[in-house]
Amino acid sequence: MYFSSKKNKVTDKDNLYPVFLASEINKSLIYYTGKYRNSPYILRKAIEYSIRNGGKRFRPVLCLLVSKSLGKDYHNILPTACAIEFIHTYSLIHDDLPSMDNDDFRRGKPSCHKKFGEDIAILTGDTLFAEAFNLVLKYQIADDSKKVRVLKEIAGASGAEGMAAGQVVDVYYTGKKISRKKLEYMDNNKTGKLISASVRCGAILSGASAEDLDKFTKYSENLGLAFQITDDILDVTSSRDVIGKTSGKDSIQNKNTFPDMWGLEKSKAIAEEKINNAVSIVESMDIDYEWLVKIARFLISRKA
Amino acid sequence: MYFSSKKNKVTDKDNLYPVFLASEINKSLIYYTGKYRNSPYILRKAIEYSIRNGGKRFRPVLCLLVSKSLGKDYHNILPTACAIEFIHTYSLIHDDLPSMDNDDFRRGKPSCHKKFGEDIAILTGDTLFAEAFNLVLKYQIADDSKKVRVLKEIAGASGAEGMAAGQVVDVYYTGKKISRKKLEYMDNNKTGKLISASVRCGAILSGASAEDLDKFTKYSENLGLAFQITDDILDVTSSRDVIGKTSGKDSIQNKNTFPDMWGLEKSKAIAEEKINNAVSIVESMDIDYEWLVKIARFLISRKA
Repeated sequence: MYFSSKKNKVTDKDNLYPVFLASEINKSLIYYTGKYRNSPYILRKAIEYSIRNGGKRFRPVLCLLVSKSLGKDYHNILPTACAIEFIHTYSLIHDDLPSMDNDDFRRGKPSCHKKFGEDIAILTGDTLFAEAFNLVLKYQIADDSKKVRVLKEIAGASGAEGMAAGQVVDVYYTGKKISRKKLEYMDNNKTGKLISASVRCGAILSGASAEDLDKFTKYSENLGLAFQITDDILDVTSSRDVIGKTSGKDSIQNKNTFPDMWGLEKSKAIAEEKINNAVSIVESMDIDYEWLVKIARFLISRKA
Repeated sequence: MYFSSKKNKVTDKDNLYPVFLASEINKSLIYYTGKYRNSPYILRKAIEYSIRNGGKRFRPVLCLLVSKSLGKDYHNILPTACAIEFIHTYSLIHDDLPSMDNDDFRRGKPSCHKKFGEDIAILTGDTLFAEAFNLVLKYQIADDSKKVRVLKEIAGASGAEGMAAGQVVDVYYTGKKISRKKLEYMDNNKTGKLISASVRCGAILSGASAEDLDKFTKYSENLGLAFQITDDILDVTSSRDVIGKTSGKDSIQNKNTFPDMWGLEKSKAIAEEKINNAVSIVESMDIDYEWLVKIARFLISRKA
């Protein structure tokens, strides 16, 4: 399995990852990031640098996969899928800042603040966050009630009971002992909620029933936790060349991680259990679940 | 005229400022910032510290005044008015950061990063931005089409063609020579657009006609520019005790300002002209414009 961020192409030798969807998203991201012709040049460059920087596009891919599993044309929800990638990218830019995780590399290239300076990096993150809402508001074709539901998902997953809250716990407890409950809170908020929002937005925009929405949500919660655990494991076991960012940093910075709390083997077992849960949930649904199963399996088999 | 940020009370000896509305907003802000009981303690504290820190509440006051001028009960739009103050506060927190304007004081107290650290300050800003959207989505009573219009105003005023873009120009050109056109772009985006959004949101939620909305917009554009010019002038002429933040910083940091470009007297004349424009616009409308005129006059008479 291999993600080439340099060529902005995603390839997957095991065929567990829907590379065709990642490519669709990359095309849309190039299209939407080309729309800021009236914005300051350096801001435009920083947006393009950060967004067109490869990556798996895991969250927007999930969003599209849910639509596909319901037999809908996933092209219709590309604006929302891109909005979610905007939010993810904004969070990475802010996380990498010197006063946060202080990471000089992201996806194998200098992080935004190393390339453009801290001030521009903070403002690029801020801009992408605002523009995520604008993508949905301006380009998503859906009736207003669905737009409101989608925006609730996105704003809810990002704020005081979502991503930002999880990151607060992360930076606040770095180097301090943390309870298992807090570690789960942190992972759920920092990573889990945006992954859930990706799945739920796909379901909402594709007209999923309340019952299906509930099942998709449970699928996404299992997936989210497995994703974070695997990320922690990869930080221990992988090298920078493969994961594209500085590895082993969690341990150097005394970050609270799953392997730290449970050990490597137990962490792997928990991740596998979560993936099995996720798989059985979608297999119990009357949908075309093939890719939803594959991407779940991909999560724990990935090397980067 | 005097704004006591310590007691969270606003008083105005010249009776040009609708102090009763600022008090309403302060009450609502206390209410809404008390809703984050499930969020990390330090994040909650930083939100309360930053939001409950006095200030004129100029933007949300404007929002309510427009509603009042149309004969509507302004209490109905308090969630949106508070959302706008959340966005304003988020922008101040990020602007004050060491890598941006590096300001240690805000409203007479240590700025957020001095009190809670840079990491928490960045995340508090991020959280307030997300929660601004949540305030509208969760608490604003309006049909979905109006909510969508309001969110478009807010997101539009904040992003790549709004506040963040203006701040990019500000930090990028600090210490460099700037053209008049760029200075106007900077002020319009950094300050003007959120002020316009405040006015427009009040109008939209209060059912203003397209014609009135257009006039309110022109009123707000004149107001916004006068506001920024007066801010620049106060930075030159006032002291920290009065304006509650470090004064004279624009000149020390080689910021591009109106007095810098046009001189003090000409800047004052431009601000007055803008205010006169604003006043004649609302006086030509079939609305109860008394307070909209007063607050315009207030803007250029203020000492802080």
